Amino acid sequence: MSLDLKSLVRTIPDYPKPGILFRDITTLIEHPEGFKESVERLAAAHRGLGFTHVAGIEARGFIFGAGVAIALGVGFVPVRKRGKLPGTTIGQNYALEYGVDTIEIHADVLSDVHKVLIVDDLIATGGTAIAAVGLIRRTGAVCDHAAFAIDLPDLGGADKLRAEKVNVNALMAFEGH
Amino acid sequence: MSLDLKSLVRTIPDYPKPGILFRDITTLIEHPEGFKESVERLAAAHRGLGFTHVAGIEARGFIFGAGVAIALGVGFVPVRKRGKLPGTTIGQNYALEYGVDTIEIHADVLSDVHKVLIVDDLIATGGTAIAAVGLIRRTGAVCDHAAFAIDLPDLGGADKLRAEKVNVNALMAFEGH
Repeated sequence: MSLDLKSLVRTIPDYPKPGILFRDITTLIEHPEGFKESVERLAAAHRGLGFTHVAGIEARGFIFGAGVAIALGVGFVPVRKRGKLPGTTIGQNYALEYGVDTIEIHADVLSDVHKVLIVDDLIATGGTAIAAVGLIRRTGAVCDHAAFAIDLPDLGGADKLRAEKVNVNALMAFEGH
Repeated sequence: MSLDLKSLVRTIPDYPKPGILFRDITTLIEHPEGFKESVERLAAAHRGLGFTHVAGIEARGFIFGAGVAIALGVGFVPVRKRGKLPGTTIGQNYALEYGVDTIEIHADVLSDVHKVLIVDDLIATGGTAIAAVGLIRRTGAVCDHAAFAIDLPDLGGADKLRAEKVNVNALMAFEGH
């Protein structure tokens, strides 16, 4: 477990707009050991805690979340953008910089006998993750853990999750944004 | 290896439009053993063949593809819809029922020393999968295997892939569409 995962993340300046340093996880997941060890570390931090499902947030959260679900031996629940799930859904709005977006899960998959770990590639301002916590808690399921490959602590999302009584685990942090 | 994976796929009638029987894999991946065994079977069919990468097609292909990449110990390449990848990309158009869509990969990830397994949840008419094969072959990489959870053989996509000299593996098939 000595791989430097952070060195495998590529930084792309001025994407998606000037002044932003975009942390690109594709170079991490394209690296066989980097991807495998990322998933193993995320799973190891959550083993033995009674989780029944991993909820992965579309789309990069699917990549890490699927691996963590298999490593933990639990089911995988896709948290998708509006209109992408074929069954009856429940949704939660969240604010974007300009406007509002919606995430959804199937209405019949979770209930108060379940305990759910949220997984996404990156936590920035936390809007999507907070919405996912609220959405999952509305089903009655326990949702007090969220795991990310990358935290951008200066953007405050992890602190916002902690204020909602969510334990936050991230493999690495990058200062600035 | 006695789990009936097919029984874990939910069929939703008249989705996304009247007359279509939609095969919903969310009920399969929400099932811990169902998801794990699906990924293990897809990986087992491709072990020892020299693959260097799994290419998963956005978005449901990420869920199966990530698991297969980890099981095979290879890197994961996301095949994304246009405009979703942060680095320099190459793209391939493909025809939809009405119009044209584009998939992209990063331009710098694959070359003629690589061998790539395409993974998606389902093969229907095969438009996206054929485009993905063409896109990957343009990099010089070998791409002659594609794996799916579900084949809809009546829609002909698997036959189209075979005509392009691609080996097709699917965990299950559903007649009709």
